[in-house]
Amino acid sequence: MAFDPWGANKITDYEHAFTEFGLSKFDNSKFPIDHYLFRRNLVIAHRDFAKVYDRIKSKKTFLQLTGIASSGDLHFGHKVDIDFFKTFKGLGAKGYFCVCDLDAYTSRPDKKIPTLSVAKEYAVKNVAHLIAFGFTEKEIYVQSRKGNRYYAFVFEISKKITSNMFEAVYGHKDLGKVSAVLLQLADIMHVQLPEYFGKNPSVTGIGLDQDPHAKITRDVAKKLPYDIETPSFVYFLHQSGLKEGSKMSSSEPATAIFLGDAPDAVKKKINRTFTGGRESLEEQKEKGGNPDVCKVYEFFKFHHPDDQYLLNLSKKCRAGKILCGECKGNCFKFINEFLSGHQKKYKDALPAAKKIVYG
Amino acid sequence: MAFDPWGANKITDYEHAFTEFGLSKFDNSKFPIDHYLFRRNLVIAHRDFAKVYDRIKSKKTFLQLTGIASSGDLHFGHKVDIDFFKTFKGLGAKGYFCVCDLDAYTSRPDKKIPTLSVAKEYAVKNVAHLIAFGFTEKEIYVQSRKGNRYYAFVFEISKKITSNMFEAVYGHKDLGKVSAVLLQLADIMHVQLPEYFGKNPSVTGIGLDQDPHAKITRDVAKKLPYDIETPSFVYFLHQSGLKEGSKMSSSEPATAIFLGDAPDAVKKKINRTFTGGRESLEEQKEKGGNPDVCKVYEFFKFHHPDDQYLLNLSKKCRAGKILCGECKGNCFKFINEFLSGHQKKYKDALPAAKKIVYG
Repeated sequence: MAFDPWGANKITDYEHAFTEFGLSKFDNSKFPIDHYLFRRNLVIAHRDFAKVYDRIKSKKTFLQLTGIASSGDLHFGHKVDIDFFKTFKGLGAKGYFCVCDLDAYTSRPDKKIPTLSVAKEYAVKNVAHLIAFGFTEKEIYVQSRKGNRYYAFVFEISKKITSNMFEAVYGHKDLGKVSAVLLQLADIMHVQLPEYFGKNPSVTGIGLDQDPHAKITRDVAKKLPYDIETPSFVYFLHQSGLKEGSKMSSSEPATAIFLGDAPDAVKKKINRTFTGGRESLEEQKEKGGNPDVCKVYEFFKFHHPDDQYLLNLSKKCRAGKILCGECKGNCFKFINEFLSGHQKKYKDALPAAKKIVYG
Repeated sequence: MAFDPWGANKITDYEHAFTEFGLSKFDNSKFPIDHYLFRRNLVIAHRDFAKVYDRIKSKKTFLQLTGIASSGDLHFGHKVDIDFFKTFKGLGAKGYFCVCDLDAYTSRPDKKIPTLSVAKEYAVKNVAHLIAFGFTEKEIYVQSRKGNRYYAFVFEISKKITSNMFEAVYGHKDLGKVSAVLLQLADIMHVQLPEYFGKNPSVTGIGLDQDPHAKITRDVAKKLPYDIETPSFVYFLHQSGLKEGSKMSSSEPATAIFLGDAPDAVKKKINRTFTGGRESLEEQKEKGGNPDVCKVYEFFKFHHPDDQYLLNLSKKCRAGKILCGECKGNCFKFINEFLSGHQKKYKDALPAAKKIVYG
């Protein structure tokens, strides 16, 4: 099985990531990072993270680069990328959060992103959300306005990837997607150029499905005519979709709570969310629910900062002491409280976001 | 036989360009352009030049884009590209002369251009020569400093070339060369974007060996989400090398007079140049020389502005009334007179050239 970073498949089996792909398991006792995403084992693997962790421990410079393709509206699945970025920033990382508008246009079919302008419209919204999350304008860039040095680097990278290498990793040589990969590689590595932060260990948080990018990035890093550290990666689980067996995806709005969703829409979606509840209230009170498969519980697991809340909820659910209706009520209350504050900041951030995207 | 724009072969057979590749013969009576390069039939073919000529005749806007890869020092073979640009400029064309540093780095092997810095060092020299030829700084750009809109366009183009299309035209999918092609396509077409000169017929002068670029450019122009004119091309003959059967090439210094060559070097090279002379002086006086194969005569044909001079020389040579020694003497005198003025302007232009390349 190959990971397809552009596919819509949900990866349900993680074990092969360690056996087949040579990722290392992320060991919280070896790399203790005080954030619920780490404590809750949502970070499952890494490549070469030890050298980044050394910098964290010794409070020396390290870098990070994270990106999202501006191919749709942001939802809570993306919030995890944002939370990781903020976590590493809190630990001292310098770097950027990239809103990938060129990548979004070149790698997505025309029926989804027909022109670069469409990718830029999404980019404005994405950037405004990032600012609402507390990002400074200096921390964010869009690919289409990054500046000459970055683009030159994209082309320098192209010389170091053979088409055989590309095809071996991705199984095709679609030139739009080749461009997207070149841009992503430049995103991840340009932070180490002398014109940016210089040579330093760097970390990028990605999903397992993005591992092909990580592998090719690390290969190319060794071939460039620049002295840079081979970039490190941590792999986190993605929050799954609200429907049973789904991936949270902007292409299927019913699977996701969007950061721009109105309270009523949130309520409606959460009420329809797949849970670990039983056939009847009686049965659930007697046998308890199953938080392990419950998408409402998963929502709390990815976003509720209080570990104790989560533990209590799990216990109460399994004991049949909280039913799905009450739990869903808590969930959309939790979401809407967050969104009401966030969406106000989002509105205020739109002019700054437009400036970042259009200049 | 396929044209290979990166190969070193000399194209000796032009007829297949019309039969196999579908180029149109350039007819001087249909498109009378008053410049010796046209009058001497050094322009042999075109694609879609009529719409450009209509603009010339009606004195309406038309565009041009020409480029050279900064992969070596400029020689008199390059001067032809420069003379064409100046000719179309004189006829009213707006546009740019591009010094292709990114292209030079990505498409040439590391043993020739090991880093982008090397391509940029050549770019400084190339730009200084262009300024010495009378180009304004606004007419020149280097790819590595062209600005965001241009790069975004490169990536937009990548979405419209399939790898099959690329392989059909070039016979390979080397990603560095893919980059070079994407850049060249962006060079040729970006002039028609609203941010530059807008939609207008455009012309690019190239050698026959560059036709694959022309074909793919014209294909892609029709697929882009922008309303632009399909670019037109004129095809000119390249001046051949000074040695018998050679191409004038910076990789083989003995084949070329460089724009930076000192008078002694020019004299030495011209003295060694292959001519249409006979075995002995006596035989030549009796039977005459053969300007058709003579590289000294070819030099005058590509660079001496006076048609009458050329006609007289041809007549005198065939009649045995001028021998190779005298003719070579006239040739290096002609070259050195030009170069002494040019090289002074070149030196003065270096600071401006550095600014264009490094900012």
